[in-house]
Amino acid sequence: MAKLLRLGVLLSGGGRTLENILDQIRAGKLAAEVAVVIASRPNIRGIDIGKAAGVPTHLVRPRDRAGVEAYSEAMCRLMDEARVDLILLAGFLSYWIVPKRYLGRVMNIHPALLPAFGGKGMYGHHVHEAVVARGCKVSGCTVHFVNNAYDEGPIILQRPVPVYAEDTPDDVAARVFREECIAYPEAIRLFSEGRLRIDGLRVHIDSPAYRRP
Amino acid sequence: MAKLLRLGVLLSGGGRTLENILDQIRAGKLAAEVAVVIASRPNIRGIDIGKAAGVPTHLVRPRDRAGVEAYSEAMCRLMDEARVDLILLAGFLSYWIVPKRYLGRVMNIHPALLPAFGGKGMYGHHVHEAVVARGCKVSGCTVHFVNNAYDEGPIILQRPVPVYAEDTPDDVAARVFREECIAYPEAIRLFSEGRLRIDGLRVHIDSPAYRRP
Repeated sequence: MAKLLRLGVLLSGGGRTLENILDQIRAGKLAAEVAVVIASRPNIRGIDIGKAAGVPTHLVRPRDRAGVEAYSEAMCRLMDEARVDLILLAGFLSYWIVPKRYLGRVMNIHPALLPAFGGKGMYGHHVHEAVVARGCKVSGCTVHFVNNAYDEGPIILQRPVPVYAEDTPDDVAARVFREECIAYPEAIRLFSEGRLRIDGLRVHIDSPAYRRP
Repeated sequence: MAKLLRLGVLLSGGGRTLENILDQIRAGKLAAEVAVVIASRPNIRGIDIGKAAGVPTHLVRPRDRAGVEAYSEAMCRLMDEARVDLILLAGFLSYWIVPKRYLGRVMNIHPALLPAFGGKGMYGHHVHEAVVARGCKVSGCTVHFVNNAYDEGPIILQRPVPVYAEDTPDDVAARVFREECIAYPEAIRLFSEGRLRIDGLRVHIDSPAYRRP
């Protein structure tokens, strides 16, 4: 039996994305295990979800560290100790630096079709409010590798959804989240099977399902 | 029999979009007629296509007019004379001003999912080159009403397409153009049936096919 992919999860909030990953693992749809969870804020639901699943869960706060490099290193040492293969950002809002040894091994999911509605200040509900205010007819989600620029890493998968003029931001959020629950596990699977090859800002996917027709 | 919608087409290049509209009309899929074509440049294929279809086709150049207002008025007077109901931008690259009497009656099609890859300099091939350079996995087309800001009018329809890491800009252009050939006539049909209602930047579509599920 193949070795399970070891995941490290960084989060700052409700932990809905962690919950989805854990559900997928329990359902046997994702051959992985969550080896460690790190929260950037105390008293958040994401911590409870990690603990309830029996995952070693830590609080590492930027304010408790002397600068962003010390903060990032503290988190990555915990990742090292947990022998993490892939770091997942799951609603993680703190500024950090990906050290060289983890470049190409950190993923994020963004609730819009990047480069639209990305960049600073564009997270969570702000994204869907902006989509509705612009009157878009399509939005979606983006799974990307994380480099050291906001929302500018190589894109792995994008899944579009329709948007209707009558939608509230909550409606769009719910529709996009359903696609996030498909896209993130799928990107993790492709990574674990060695099917992703980064080529500058492009990600080649070596799989029949993603072959150019 | 209902009165045919009278279209006025503005173009600056190859006239591929005009060609598609004419094809749709000939095939009986669009109850409209092209009443006038105005080109902003001489010796372009768009002029030949208009003439070959028997459409009154004019050359109105910005350089021959005293400023953008005179230029815009010259074009709109030709639209008035042709009793145009709806003005279509079809690869039109000159700066002009939509006079009040035509606001809400001018459409454009953009070969990306606005607001991504819109704005100044983002036209034709430049768009698809930028999409490929960014490594997007989804692009598409956008039909929107034209106000007096580049690519910032109310969005009527968007149709997404997949993008593959192996795609050239030409590949993306071809895939997007197939959707443009569906989206533009569809938006014109919805307009002619009175199904589009502009509400700030949102466009409500009164049609079962576009109802929120």
